[in-house]
Amino acid sequence: MLSEFDLIKQYFVTPASKDPRIALGIGDDCALLNPSPGKQLAISSDMLVSGRHFFPDADPFGLGHKCLAVNLSDLAAMGAKPLAFTLALSLPEANREWLDRFSKGLLTLAAEHNCTLIGGDTTKGPLNICITIFGEITPGQALRRDTAQVGDDIWISGDIGDARLALAGYWKELELSPEQHQQAAVRMHRPTPRIALGMELCGIAHAALDISDGLIGDLGHILERSKVGASLEVDKLPAGLMLQSQPQELRRRFTLAGGDDYELCFTAPIQQREQVIAAGLRTGTAVTRVGKIEHKLGLRLLDQDGQHLALELKSFDHFVSD
Amino acid sequence: MLSEFDLIKQYFVTPASKDPRIALGIGDDCALLNPSPGKQLAISSDMLVSGRHFFPDADPFGLGHKCLAVNLSDLAAMGAKPLAFTLALSLPEANREWLDRFSKGLLTLAAEHNCTLIGGDTTKGPLNICITIFGEITPGQALRRDTAQVGDDIWISGDIGDARLALAGYWKELELSPEQHQQAAVRMHRPTPRIALGMELCGIAHAALDISDGLIGDLGHILERSKVGASLEVDKLPAGLMLQSQPQELRRRFTLAGGDDYELCFTAPIQQREQVIAAGLRTGTAVTRVGKIEHKLGLRLLDQDGQHLALELKSFDHFVSD
Repeated sequence: MLSEFDLIKQYFVTPASKDPRIALGIGDDCALLNPSPGKQLAISSDMLVSGRHFFPDADPFGLGHKCLAVNLSDLAAMGAKPLAFTLALSLPEANREWLDRFSKGLLTLAAEHNCTLIGGDTTKGPLNICITIFGEITPGQALRRDTAQVGDDIWISGDIGDARLALAGYWKELELSPEQHQQAAVRMHRPTPRIALGMELCGIAHAALDISDGLIGDLGHILERSKVGASLEVDKLPAGLMLQSQPQELRRRFTLAGGDDYELCFTAPIQQREQVIAAGLRTGTAVTRVGKIEHKLGLRLLDQDGQHLALELKSFDHFVSD
Repeated sequence: MLSEFDLIKQYFVTPASKDPRIALGIGDDCALLNPSPGKQLAISSDMLVSGRHFFPDADPFGLGHKCLAVNLSDLAAMGAKPLAFTLALSLPEANREWLDRFSKGLLTLAAEHNCTLIGGDTTKGPLNICITIFGEITPGQALRRDTAQVGDDIWISGDIGDARLALAGYWKELELSPEQHQQAAVRMHRPTPRIALGMELCGIAHAALDISDGLIGDLGHILERSKVGASLEVDKLPAGLMLQSQPQELRRRFTLAGGDDYELCFTAPIQQREQVIAAGLRTGTAVTRVGKIEHKLGLRLLDQDGQHLALELKSFDHFVSD
């Protein structure tokens, strides 16, 4: 039978990192990091629960990718450069095939971002995956939520809403063609953390976060913490490729209150428009200007004629919506 | 109803830390730390699962204490000084009374060690508590597992086995008086992380770890990683106060292969005996010399006459024992 230590050794220990900042990796009571002199450490934790954040029969390779991707996305939202992560894993059983594919999905994405697995924990229990990730950033450069300024443009990276469309397909809320559903599902299962763009936006953007619970709820955090309001041009929101061919009402709903997008929503002064577009070009990431930070509190939704839209929407909350 | 953000705000956000190393705490995509110049960061993650690491009806105050204590114990085992931690929490429901007591147990111990909660995650799901902890240590001073040397004494802090005795009471393996059981249970539910001793042992001890899965299994990690063997004087092992009055066979079994002790097992050169005892005195921690690191591989158990004991014991493994 596979013991806890064999499990870690076989599936999660990679050749010793050559990164001099990683003084000690997996296998002791603690890992040891040598932070780069003069840098701040950005830290984020995300816990993914079976049946809540992913289907119990989810493809383990994709799951390994997604668990790390959502954590990388938090680093991207601060503008931090990935360094390392810990993985705590509760598993119903030590299934070799599952572990093999899960660890490959996880470690493939980790390698792409030079982000080293340095420790963690494994235990038996209901499937639960908790990653804590570490990145580095120059002090004063982090893209926070409380630093949006009146007059800023609001921008969104990539496109949003296809993950929500895929979910609607799984839930049978909508009839999608198999091909539509499959393509939308890629956005749900394989989010792309916008690490390169986040780093480029340091010094250009004022505030940023990643869209995980739906745009209006997440943008609401920037507004609340920055003590500002905003208006959004709803029909300018960059809808996902599959969502684009859906009716306007659905497009509006899924871009505004989708979830699982893992794109960046950021604000930047008008004078930085060219710089924002250049940052998008350098990192191969679409950037779309979708609204404005305003003095008047609250969030105003405008249609293509600048008329107010009254939409009943809410963001996802783990303890209220169910 | 209590939303995810209210839950965090009400129970887990404490007044802003005055620690200049904590540049940004709870509420953004990432927390930001300013590591002290010239220090290494020690990092450890532990995941505690309901029904596995604690009883589903466990007192939430004690549970909050224990979750952080086992993580602090990992810092102690490296000799690191606590700095901060993240908490990821999966909860079946947002129960105010449970949250109030859990957060008090957690944050009381955190305050005792100047260890600040800087972020995390909350979600709905089977009860699961994952903490990642951060400490600081001078490079080269960490008490690792792979640095025991032939000739070293083996030491144990405090006493061991009472947590296992309490478990035997819960499992009805043994008949304990209510008072015995209650006192033993304190050691199970309220472990004392040996932070002060761990820090004092830097520069004195060669190797260390904390005893969580049972002494012989945990000491085995030091032996394996340091490529050495050891002999243990079994009847010198410091048995917990309640275990002391139990028959010799049980004392031996529960000190050697108990679990949940969270005491330090460390090795130090013979020349440091006085220094080890002085470190114990300065930190109010008993230290007991229980064996020797030897060239010959394997672990030898000796009785009080120096005779070999053949005992069938095994350490706890999450995926093998069940």
